[in-house]
Amino acid sequence: MTNKRVLVKPARKTFVEDLKREVTVDKGAVHFVEDNTKDYSTRDGTIRKEDLQKTEGTVQTTKGAEYAIFEQSFIDEYRGLRRLAQTIHRKDIGFIIAETGINKNSVIAEAGTGSAGLSCFLAPLVKQIHSFDSNDTHLDMAKQNLARLNIKNVTLHRQDVYQAIPVQDCDLFVLDLPEPWQALPHAIGAVRPGGFIINYSPSITQAQQCAVAAEKHANLLHLKTVEIIERPWKLSSKVARPASQMLNHTAFISVFRKIQ
Amino acid sequence: MTNKRVLVKPARKTFVEDLKREVTVDKGAVHFVEDNTKDYSTRDGTIRKEDLQKTEGTVQTTKGAEYAIFEQSFIDEYRGLRRLAQTIHRKDIGFIIAETGINKNSVIAEAGTGSAGLSCFLAPLVKQIHSFDSNDTHLDMAKQNLARLNIKNVTLHRQDVYQAIPVQDCDLFVLDLPEPWQALPHAIGAVRPGGFIINYSPSITQAQQCAVAAEKHANLLHLKTVEIIERPWKLSSKVARPASQMLNHTAFISVFRKIQ
Amino acid sequence: MTNKRVLVKPARKTFVEDLKREVTVDKGAVHFVEDNTKDYSTRDGTIRKEDLQKTEGTVQTTKGAEYAIFEQSFIDEYRGLRRLAQTIHRKDIGFIIAETGINKNSVIAEAGTGSAGLSCFLAPLVKQIHSFDSNDTHLDMAKQNLARLNIKNVTLHRQDVYQAIPVQDCDLFVLDLPEPWQALPHAIGAVRPGGFIINYSPSITQAQQCAVAAEKHANLLHLKTVEIIERPWKLSSKVARPASQMLNHTAFISVFRKIQ
Amino acid sequence: MTNKRVLVKPARKTFVEDLKREVTVDKGAVHFVEDNTKDYSTRDGTIRKEDLQKTEGTVQTTKGAEYAIFEQSFIDEYRGLRRLAQTIHRKDIGFIIAETGINKNSVIAEAGTGSAGLSCFLAPLVKQIHSFDSNDTHLDMAKQNLARLNIKNVTLHRQDVYQAIPVQDCDLFVLDLPEPWQALPHAIGAVRPGGFIINYSPSITQAQQCAVAAEKHANLLHLKTVEIIERPWKLSSKVARPASQMLNHTAFISVFRKIQ
Repeated sequence: MTNKRVLVKPARKTFVEDLKREVTVDKGAVHFVEDNTKDYSTRDGTIRKEDLQKTEGTVQTTKGAEYAIFEQSFIDEYRGLRRLAQTIHRKDIGFIIAETGINKNSVIAEAGTGSAGLSCFLAPLVKQIHSFDSNDTHLDMAKQNLARLNIKNVTLHRQDVYQAIPVQDCDLFVLDLPEPWQALPHAIGAVRPGGFIINYSPSITQAQQCAVAAEKHANLLHLKTVEIIERPWKLSSKVARPASQMLNHTAFISVFRKIQ
Repeated sequence: MTNKRVLVKPARKTFVEDLKREVTVDKGAVHFVEDNTKDYSTRDGTIRKEDLQKTEGTVQTTKGAEYAIFEQSFIDEYRGLRRLAQTIHRKDIGFIIAETGINKNSVIAEAGTGSAGLSCFLAPLVKQIHSFDSNDTHLDMAKQNLARLNIKNVTLHRQDVYQAIPVQDCDLFVLDLPEPWQALPHAIGAVRPGGFIINYSPSITQAQQCAVAAEKHANLLHLKTVEIIERPWKLSSKVARPASQMLNHTAFISVFRKIQ
Repeated sequence: MTNKRVLVKPARKTFVEDLKREVTVDKGAVHFVEDNTKDYSTRDGTIRKEDLQKTEGTVQTTKGAEYAIFEQSFIDEYRGLRRLAQTIHRKDIGFIIAETGINKNSVIAEAGTGSAGLSCFLAPLVKQIHSFDSNDTHLDMAKQNLARLNIKNVTLHRQDVYQAIPVQDCDLFVLDLPEPWQALPHAIGAVRPGGFIINYSPSITQAQQCAVAAEKHANLLHLKTVEIIERPWKLSSKVARPASQMLNHTAFISVFRKIQ
Repeated sequence: MTNKRVLVKPARKTFVEDLKREVTVDKGAVHFVEDNTKDYSTRDGTIRKEDLQKTEGTVQTTKGAEYAIFEQSFIDEYRGLRRLAQTIHRKDIGFIIAETGINKNSVIAEAGTGSAGLSCFLAPLVKQIHSFDSNDTHLDMAKQNLARLNIKNVTLHRQDVYQAIPVQDCDLFVLDLPEPWQALPHAIGAVRPGGFIINYSPSITQAQQCAVAAEKHANLLHLKTVEIIERPWKLSSKVARPASQMLNHTAFISVFRKIQ
């Protein structure tokens, strides 16, 4: 049970005969209410805290606007986290899960923690996460984010992973570091045979340097390096075409497997 | 504990001075051993069942070839499933997880079951799955695949979802059907407010028809329709470039949310 | 000889030791001077008309800023045209040339003219262009653009191409119309055996409807339908990665060939 | 007038009621006849040289199969050239034209010549081409290809462009070399102010090294580096979707402009 709510007023369009096309009458709105024990203000008027107790159906603002209301799901709370600029994008997190098959039984690790965006997403999916960072500002933000989502199975480690990584037998280790090749030998030591190492690098030069460093380790296979591209489309009764602009790039993702 | 093993002989390359480039000496090999209570044959000779008991390290074939050995992980067993041609691709499964935030606490549903590829992947990540199909051949294959992975939390339903969907309050419903718009009203009834409906269609015409049908439901938001493209790269010390050929297309994925 | 000039002040960056990265000191500037018989003002001061007579080298503004100067090439003048929103993108024009092999000996045609962006680009590459449109506003803008580039080998025709196309034996006909299938039979009549018809449609539904209409014509082969995607990269000594955002879509381009 | 012909038998499909889908009855065939003074054999029988004189219409084989016949266009003859593996792809040639606006009035240059694929394509579009290579095997193949297309305005130069490039005032210089940065200073000397230099490199590491080398030249602007991706689609009355597989990569193309 959560005291967080989502409020949605759908967009409204209407077909205008003269223009021979649909026109947006109301752009709609989505609000993420963090605390339903207080009144909440929108541009269309205020919704009273009594109404925010509801977990489904609709509520009305003081000005008569109608909003659908429902409890925040994990994904809504996740979206509401404070995050550093370089947080791993969700499409890329999805790929990591799809590629490694981590699940309820998995113990995984990552470095650096950053704002713990990755750990927060994976925590409800796996058994245990170890997260390493040497930056106290990051660790503080991570701690707050984990607390906010009430996550208990992530252990934060203040640790320079270029020097050592004091865990073992992980099913997966995710490297999200400026110089991943410096942490690679320690990451190999931290996963079990059959376990995976993922490297996440914005620049292909970093991905390349990490892949070349990996070649030195006879017990590590470089399975693939890819980009995950999420291409958005516009669909309506008359038109089906890709959106005009898109996010072109987040990072190159390399998948390695420890075989011995 | 599993009696399935992975055997890996890494590829070997060597730099040939005359050619001024690396040449592959041994292409390497990967074997997925389904039953380690029997001897296993490779092109390099046989590995004896006694050696296949090992869970890490290396084993030798009768001809002296050396293989790394480790226990199959979930992802290896998943790859070994018998599958129908149209099974949802793993990159797309990853996106569905990333987009909806389903996790250990989630109850989800899908139609059609097909060979249960999606259910098999998601079962170890969520609490409970309901899977609907009206094709007995599919349901049989699904049953076998679930048994093979020892999955207990997937319930198969023999059901024509164009007629009805007899579950409620799901966190997610995945439609993988030739005419998803026929099942859409029932799928809406099957998810809770705040829950998600995903449509997976190979052709944009199907995705469009489903999106247009969704517009008729005031309690459903069409959040996005996308393609997920996994672009492979080649990395070595000298070269960094995209692979020459790639998988161009699997499906269009639409994300809807029930708001009321 | 042209009286149009390009003025360029290159961007300047410097490495800042404290930040350990390059910082932009001057963003640089590019100016396209339409008339070098008048003084030209920049944010860095004025360049006098006497200096604008130069065809290469550098000029100084009244405030001492230095600009490289050179005569406008065709591509600069082309960029300076007034254009309608839907003008065919240059990457797509390039594809049309590459696919059809039109050249100095080719007689080609297009409909609709629009602002004549396509005709203006192709005119200096081919022998003769016929351009059809039924919208007088378009034809006026087209006329002005052709005059501005001093193009003599484009004939504008005021014509509803859904009714008829009064030319024959063209090497290429480019359709850039809301309902290309209506003009298709006439376009087929307008090209020689072995000639090409290109359809340019923003929405895949239009491309599909045109392709299906083409199937009815036994003397027309549908060679391919493609999207041309221009993916931008960022390169510097430290970083090599795709630009964060990109133009995702302009149009679907179908290539047909008349075989008889 | 050419003695080369194209023969086309269109594919034939039919809708099979039982299967509820279209089935291919005849895959069709395309033949490029190099010499119409001799009989030509197909799998469906022989077409006699008398019939091959026709420049349009249809011809019948000795077994009664019917082919559409038409004269080869430039693009057909171009496709018939012998070519080295690394020839610049046509989609990329299209981009070079689109980006630089070269035309009938342009004098351009390239290195290396290779099999002269680029020169052969551009020759009918521009005034004059200088093509440089130091490999005699390449130059011989280039000579043959130019002769085969009866091209007169390409001058082949036997020259190591890492040492010098003895032309001036070109409108465009295309570098297609293993180490383009070695030729860059000479290429800059070979183009006029306002002229373009294009670098074509399969690996991003080459493109990066060339871009970094270009930064040293204050009179050269790096306008952009891109990939051109041609994404194929399948369209029929029922289905509209991207083709399953595609060509993922040919090269990175950098566009530079000499400003002074």
